[in-house]
Amino acid sequence: MKRTYVKDCTIQMEGTISCAGWVHRIRSLGKVTFLLLRDRTGIIQTVWDEAPEVTLESVVRIQGSITGNQKAPGGIELQADSLEVLAPAAADLPIAVNQDTNQLSLDALLDHRMLSLRSPKIRSIFFLQSAILGYFGEYMRSREFTEIKSSKLIGSGSEGGTGLFEVEYFDRKVYLAQSPQLYKQAMVANGMEQVFEIGAAYRAEKHDTPRHLNEYVSLDIEMGFIESDQELMDLEVDILGYIFDRIRERHSDVLETFHTDLPSSVEMQATPRISHDEAKKILSERLGKRVFELNPEGERELCDWAKEQSGVEALFVHSFPRKKRPFYTYPDGRKTMSFDLLFRGLEITSGGRRIHEYDMLVESIKRHGMEPEQLSDYLQVFRYGCPPHGGFAIGLERITQKILGLNSVKEASLFPRDRKRVKP
Amino acid sequence: MKRTYVKDCTIQMEGTISCAGWVHRIRSLGKVTFLLLRDRTGIIQTVWDEAPEVTLESVVRIQGSITGNQKAPGGIELQADSLEVLAPAAADLPIAVNQDTNQLSLDALLDHRMLSLRSPKIRSIFFLQSAILGYFGEYMRSREFTEIKSSKLIGSGSEGGTGLFEVEYFDRKVYLAQSPQLYKQAMVANGMEQVFEIGAAYRAEKHDTPRHLNEYVSLDIEMGFIESDQELMDLEVDILGYIFDRIRERHSDVLETFHTDLPSSVEMQATPRISHDEAKKILSERLGKRVFELNPEGERELCDWAKEQSGVEALFVHSFPRKKRPFYTYPDGRKTMSFDLLFRGLEITSGGRRIHEYDMLVESIKRHGMEPEQLSDYLQVFRYGCPPHGGFAIGLERITQKILGLNSVKEASLFPRDRKRVKP
Repeated sequence: MKRTYVKDCTIQMEGTISCAGWVHRIRSLGKVTFLLLRDRTGIIQTVWDEAPEVTLESVVRIQGSITGNQKAPGGIELQADSLEVLAPAAADLPIAVNQDTNQLSLDALLDHRMLSLRSPKIRSIFFLQSAILGYFGEYMRSREFTEIKSSKLIGSGSEGGTGLFEVEYFDRKVYLAQSPQLYKQAMVANGMEQVFEIGAAYRAEKHDTPRHLNEYVSLDIEMGFIESDQELMDLEVDILGYIFDRIRERHSDVLETFHTDLPSSVEMQATPRISHDEAKKILSERLGKRVFELNPEGERELCDWAKEQSGVEALFVHSFPRKKRPFYTYPDGRKTMSFDLLFRGLEITSGGRRIHEYDMLVESIKRHGMEPEQLSDYLQVFRYGCPPHGGFAIGLERITQKILGLNSVKEASLFPRDRKRVKP
Repeated sequence: MKRTYVKDCTIQMEGTISCAGWVHRIRSLGKVTFLLLRDRTGIIQTVWDEAPEVTLESVVRIQGSITGNQKAPGGIELQADSLEVLAPAAADLPIAVNQDTNQLSLDALLDHRMLSLRSPKIRSIFFLQSAILGYFGEYMRSREFTEIKSSKLIGSGSEGGTGLFEVEYFDRKVYLAQSPQLYKQAMVANGMEQVFEIGAAYRAEKHDTPRHLNEYVSLDIEMGFIESDQELMDLEVDILGYIFDRIRERHSDVLETFHTDLPSSVEMQATPRISHDEAKKILSERLGKRVFELNPEGERELCDWAKEQSGVEALFVHSFPRKKRPFYTYPDGRKTMSFDLLFRGLEITSGGRRIHEYDMLVESIKRHGMEPEQLSDYLQVFRYGCPPHGGFAIGLERITQKILGLNSVKEASLFPRDRKRVKP
């Protein structure tokens, strides 16, 4: 018999139907037993005269007929006739899938990842993440950006060699790419003009904080023929507005589960843009002490300020000093044409205009204490004509975390990698 | 002045317009000079009374007015007024971007990748690849598959430890994943039921052939509640049919450039499905010798046979013997519920139903000469109820190669990695 998804079960259904999924909960009340059946689309209450012999989390197929019950979830239940166990679950579940996962520590959630991901609430984080990936690609294509896939195995680091994971590649050493920086710039120079990439990025940083992952998914963008980094900020506001509108329209259930909401594309247009100097000034005033750097406390405070100013908990900080940005950042006097986007207290994007002139780039490499020879592959791109350009990257896990208000970015990664964690 | 893309230039345009791009070719005919300007949308002829001083591949902005010229490409040309050099190119181009790239060896194409990618013909390979990525995701979402992003850093190999690249991960060793096999199966078991992933896969194999890459992009699919591998073949035919139809509709220019065409979704439905034993029998007859294995020669011959039989150069070979498939393949007597898809002479997919029963899996691991302890993370997924399931993977570079008829799979990778090549 053809399987019916839980979401498609309605009171109008007549005769016998077949559902399949996981045994979410069993409750025996003497004469009657309720078995909650969970599939990817929802949970339905099945009703038994005799309690079926089956363990929690077993995969089963249940046949029966739909009847109305005002007290059941969704107002319907399945009067069960038969149950077939497709795959039994061992009875020693190390965590309870059907309990409130807020009770679990982050370590418990991640140590038992194969089970915690079965929780409908936790799973919904990744239904949303899948949607973000889809909307991002959809929007970039609508703006005629080309998707690229660059190598993650590189001969040397684009940022000068620190924070790289080393790979044994046959008889030599290579490194895991920290970002597709070189490649996305190269594809602009090579005539694609505007590209995006969805790919893994690796940072061998020893931080173990709620905002760091050693492996993450980067939504990268690079575009040619821009004149200032303001155009990049315009683009990012448009991208986020598009994604947020779609989530509000089609995934409001997930937002409700996490008791949160999102600004609309129209509201996002009000996102303030302030210089790094202005940001420090605002922080000094609000915190009542002199602020020299934007640390996590400062990022949260600035988002509070933005919320008061504009109604959205987001702002761009631009015009960072040269020494705070990578060598490839386009200078603007002692400052740079670069920016971060802070969203709900966290930097989710870093970007800016890049140097496209060969001689200026060589000078900047030296100024940052590196040797142009180390970066000869990189420099080659600029020897043969590269248009003015710039770009940015959005951290997929960070934006997922901040949309849903998760405590740690690790909760927004299916199988996070940190200093201590390389499994499952 | 706002930039006009070459594709948007028409004879109807009045007054001065501004185009920007790369200097593709310069031809002086005494009184008049033609400069071909290339942008990501096309090439336009610009006309000069006096030859502008600029090198090939420099990035320039040209202002002028459109006039008709039957002899110019597209029937129009730009009577140029002024030229601004946005970024000069060095005059020592190691390869000619504006020449027929068929003249270049594969090594020349890849050694000078940053320049060969500027060739409009080579670039079009990657416009098409971007489209394939888009259509694949679009189709999988339309079938309610969820996109996942799994870690590429794993504690041990899913196929038993050979062919893995080792990574120094802080104070321990991890490996680059050969496939998301464990993770996609886990996400089916964890209740997403049907997932896809677009991600990098790594094979530390020493082959250096036109069909191998050490890093490639894998389009992975896994789905639950299937009953046989025939359902997976049905799905793959639908996916490819969707992608091929879209390419035929919207990217016929690229197909024309490569003098090729594609079967439609209707034609793809005729793709033959034969067992491994039948395949050997057909080959033995056609090649006039006893055939024991499907080698590259055999794969080409089988596609010729399929073309004669069904009109499409594609076929599924299924029911491989157990010893030829990984331990997780669902057995069917001495055979397995597994298949390859051969397309235009090359295996582009491997897939099958997987073992979802814990005890059967432990037995199969032992039978393949491995220790269940080595695979304890993997086994955990099956301890707590995993539905019957299966899946497959399509190699992005291989399908791009075969759609366009490229000689080597390396031509279908922006920055290919092989035994000897780790740059650019």
